[in-house]
Amino acid sequence: MAKAVTACLIIIGNEILSGRTQDTNLAYLAKELNELGVRMVEARVIPDVEKTIVDTVNECRFKFDYVFTTGGIGPTHDDITADCIALAFDTELEMHPDVVELIKRREAPPEVMETRLRMARIPRGATLIENPTGGPPGFQLDNVFVMAGVPMVMQAMAGTLDKERIPGGDPVRSRSIGAYLSEGKVAVSLRVIAEEHPEVDLGSYPFYRQDGYGTSLVMRGTDEAELDEMLEKVRQMIIDFGAEPFTD
Amino acid sequence: MAKAVTACLIIIGNEILSGRTQDTNLAYLAKELNELGVRMVEARVIPDVEKTIVDTVNECRFKFDYVFTTGGIGPTHDDITADCIALAFDTELEMHPDVVELIKRREAPPEVMETRLRMARIPRGATLIENPTGGPPGFQLDNVFVMAGVPMVMQAMAGTLDKERIPGGDPVRSRSIGAYLSEGKVAVSLRVIAEEHPEVDLGSYPFYRQDGYGTSLVMRGTDEAELDEMLEKVRQMIIDFGAEPFTD
Repeated sequence: MAKAVTACLIIIGNEILSGRTQDTNLAYLAKELNELGVRMVEARVIPDVEKTIVDTVNECRFKFDYVFTTGGIGPTHDDITADCIALAFDTELEMHPDVVELIKRREAPPEVMETRLRMARIPRGATLIENPTGGPPGFQLDNVFVMAGVPMVMQAMAGTLDKERIPGGDPVRSRSIGAYLSEGKVAVSLRVIAEEHPEVDLGSYPFYRQDGYGTSLVMRGTDEAELDEMLEKVRQMIIDFGAEPFTD
Repeated sequence: MAKAVTACLIIIGNEILSGRTQDTNLAYLAKELNELGVRMVEARVIPDVEKTIVDTVNECRFKFDYVFTTGGIGPTHDDITADCIALAFDTELEMHPDVVELIKRREAPPEVMETRLRMARIPRGATLIENPTGGPPGFQLDNVFVMAGVPMVMQAMAGTLDKERIPGGDPVRSRSIGAYLSEGKVAVSLRVIAEEHPEVDLGSYPFYRQDGYGTSLVMRGTDEAELDEMLEKVRQMIIDFGAEPFTD
């Protein structure tokens, strides 16, 4: 397989770690990035703690081609992501004139306006990530993309990123098929097929449904012809075991 | 706040990183551990790659009081968690007699049985984590707890862990309250309240609902009296802004 273009997502927020909020940004962004030919290869969930954010960003931005962060860019005391990114890059936060203008378009009492203007503080040298929901934008500094945590807003921001901004490789395609066969039953045959196609990632996932238990088999790779060939082998294996393959 | 007892969850599985499967184990386990007085302070999602698993386990087991892993303990070629834990601890996998016996209770053809017996390979020195669903158990080695990835099975395993096995500190309690007020509006008053209660984590989460947008305010700490006092301040703040506080 050609060297993959990699990404890491840093999910910032105590509410995810406490179990109060269920993250959905990882799954969403993983699929979006895949279409750009970028593979999500790690994710981290970390609290709203300055040192942790700075250290994690600095570790990850050298380890992966792209780093995305979600969360912590609002106007309150626990929104410290922009500050931490500036610290990680040893740069300053500056009032970004375009964001200031955007925020001032919606009137507010002076105290509220001052608070909202916190969201115009963007690290020097960063470029903005547009926010089609009308709120303040995210930003990109080097290979780090800083986005909102609220899924609706994050998704809108992610939708503005394209191949020009995030050059990737070949998108990963997948094939999947299921059967009411235990993992134990298919394991040996599956290993043989996996070894015949080292470029393809063959995953095996047990499921438990009302009508029985079985296994979903998922092939992921960049070569569609090879995926189809492999899918056919897996389908035949299922039939050889006397089961009925189904689309999964 | 007394020094917290900390945990990190390592979620092992390509299917989570590809976006195919939505993780729910983090939120579930975070709440369960909290009842034992253990705080989830980080989570990592990593692929089924030996080096990554070994390195992550070794980094995290020294950094946090407890490490939990989910995923990769089934019988197929992509289930390599037990092997990686043994590598991380520089120990061997051994056939665990209790697990062998459990697996052999369900009859199977020799080839299938051999595959299923892979799940009896437990690192030397580990103690088992019971699996009330009837399948093979997880295991604990030192401060690392290895569990299944399928939520139903993980939850059953987690349910067997108690205060004797996982000594913790005081459980974190929370209070939450919502209002149709923007984060920008409440930010300054909120910061004042937060600074008056440095022991309590005060989080502010914007929401967008059909009937308008607003903010959820969540207080988390171990002192119930202090939480109640703080909740009262936040409730009064909301009323002072002319809004109606609601239970959130």
